[in-house]
Amino acid sequence: MNRLRGVLALVMLGLMGGRTAAQAKKPGSLTIKEQGSFFVGGEHRQVTQPGFGPNAPPITGEITVNQMYVQYQIPMKGDQHAPVVMVHGCCLSSKTWETTPDGRMGWSEYFVRKDRPVYLADQVSRARSGFDPTTFADVRQGKTPPAQMPTILDATHQVAWTVFRFGPKFGEAFPDEQFPIQAMDELYKQMIPDLNATLPQNPNPTWTQMAALGVKLRGAVLMGHSESGFFPEQAALIDPSGIKGIVSIEMPCVTNLTDAQIGTLAKIPTLVMFGDHLGDVTGGPANWAQSFGTCNTFVDQLKKAGGDAEMMHLPALGIKGNSHMLMQDKNSDQLADLVIAWLDKHVDAKNGRSKNATR
Amino acid sequence: MNRLRGVLALVMLGLMGGRTAAQAKKPGSLTIKEQGSFFVGGEHRQVTQPGFGPNAPPITGEITVNQMYVQYQIPMKGDQHAPVVMVHGCCLSSKTWETTPDGRMGWSEYFVRKDRPVYLADQVSRARSGFDPTTFADVRQGKTPPAQMPTILDATHQVAWTVFRFGPKFGEAFPDEQFPIQAMDELYKQMIPDLNATLPQNPNPTWTQMAALGVKLRGAVLMGHSESGFFPEQAALIDPSGIKGIVSIEMPCVTNLTDAQIGTLAKIPTLVMFGDHLGDVTGGPANWAQSFGTCNTFVDQLKKAGGDAEMMHLPALGIKGNSHMLMQDKNSDQLADLVIAWLDKHVDAKNGRSKNATR
Repeated sequence: MNRLRGVLALVMLGLMGGRTAAQAKKPGSLTIKEQGSFFVGGEHRQVTQPGFGPNAPPITGEITVNQMYVQYQIPMKGDQHAPVVMVHGCCLSSKTWETTPDGRMGWSEYFVRKDRPVYLADQVSRARSGFDPTTFADVRQGKTPPAQMPTILDATHQVAWTVFRFGPKFGEAFPDEQFPIQAMDELYKQMIPDLNATLPQNPNPTWTQMAALGVKLRGAVLMGHSESGFFPEQAALIDPSGIKGIVSIEMPCVTNLTDAQIGTLAKIPTLVMFGDHLGDVTGGPANWAQSFGTCNTFVDQLKKAGGDAEMMHLPALGIKGNSHMLMQDKNSDQLADLVIAWLDKHVDAKNGRSKNATR
Repeated sequence: MNRLRGVLALVMLGLMGGRTAAQAKKPGSLTIKEQGSFFVGGEHRQVTQPGFGPNAPPITGEITVNQMYVQYQIPMKGDQHAPVVMVHGCCLSSKTWETTPDGRMGWSEYFVRKDRPVYLADQVSRARSGFDPTTFADVRQGKTPPAQMPTILDATHQVAWTVFRFGPKFGEAFPDEQFPIQAMDELYKQMIPDLNATLPQNPNPTWTQMAALGVKLRGAVLMGHSESGFFPEQAALIDPSGIKGIVSIEMPCVTNLTDAQIGTLAKIPTLVMFGDHLGDVTGGPANWAQSFGTCNTFVDQLKKAGGDAEMMHLPALGIKGNSHMLMQDKNSDQLADLVIAWLDKHVDAKNGRSKNATR
């Protein structure tokens, strides 16, 4: 019976997803003030590599590591709102925020059309940010034992299905699932190897570069998801001066911060979002009910310290069926509107953005 | 004396580069008809990975490999011209075509502002296209010997300086060097590990996906650079039906194609571009004078077979000092105009583009 409901749900989702995509595909022209890309951070590292040709001596030189690639669009009225920096999760890239698997507009363009400057960052060691290949080369040359090679994380389709809460088990969707299941293959193509194990830990350079990006932008909202969900907070603990707001989506929260750390974070308006079915998938590497619990604790800690913090649990607002990839779910525009309304009230209004805009 | 000239050149370039960047930074607003991103190709591969937790049994599942990430913008008058697909070279990503190291507009936006739909592809196994990590995982687990691990290519700053022909040796620029030397550090950040050794060879899946993208777009110009310089030709040898024109920039050309292969390629208008100082850097992994020779041979072969092929050697047009990264050189707008004028005459005019546009 459950299986039949799942199949029926798949069929219905397919029909609805198709219709939604067709309706939404032509949003009309878009005028932007400026666009481009740049890097934040990056250091030189000296390396020794094999020479050119079989008998050539090794070459010593430098490579650049730990830089973070950022791609941006500034809308015509971008001065009226704080820029939003979006950072993707594990085994994904900034593609997360672009065209959805079923071909609708992603959050990046949607936010631009709502007059927000948007900055998409590929995490350090992922996608266009590149990674430090030194240890792999050392293992290949026999200088380092294979077991010391950094683990490359990648999720199988099977693992993703349950971790991303598309349904109770692989191939079976929740009856009210909001992810566009019929376009699943397009999500699988977005899932790329995660080389974060090659990075220095604590601080992860992505945290450092996110904090620096906030400063460079003279104030920005940092948004993280899943693996990067708590990165905005980690960035703020390095340097809060450029962080005007935080949006943390679906991650485990750190609950043993010191009073001083909570005090720092409590000065930044913080929105935490979680979707549906948090307790409905068991097994696998993620425990969403537990993560939700840690974030409720964290939000309470911020509030007790006088912070403007909110836990937005979508089912509590009557919004059902959202997956872990909620920015790609069929109601992604609706969810974006919730975030934008929160930013208007809790970040832009408080920061007198229109005053800043005249600088 | 040469060293002094180099230093003086660096200082002058710094001054000029700064001025150019400041002048060019505000090109005015841009209205686009549509933008987004998608993948071309991609297959499922079954893999076995370690389970979650120390005593968990291995997990068998599927991952997606060989997909190619593509990001696009279509300008308002995009129907008037064939779309242009730009593919980057070794140890680089689509960042190649975006904002230049010294902060000017890159070719991607420039072509859009000249009414061309532009599609930026990250090569398969690079950047947002991801890569197949299976062999690395197998080496780490002791299933495969380290020596069989694919070589990860990355270029040191020192190697890049001469291979990209910024000057005769590291830290010394050619007196007439067109690359914005003062912004070199920003180029170094673009240089990321190249995992093409993980790919099936001949055909490289990037060739296959480029051909498929041409078909999907119902006709496109394919542009390659350096490592990917001959990829448009390789794509055309797989399926020429969607390829309306080829722009090949600075690479070794294949000169032992069969008459049938040359016959296929001769049906596609082809522009080959080379910059300056081809014989002025010796040593290192690239031999530009030799590459130039092979491409002259190739262009002659196309012409003899009745093809519309052109070797555009910039110094022969009186344009001096261009590096291997010519799309980022200080005169990048001028070079883009040369390509655009060539496309107008040799591709769009011949293909009755305005007729196609009404479809």
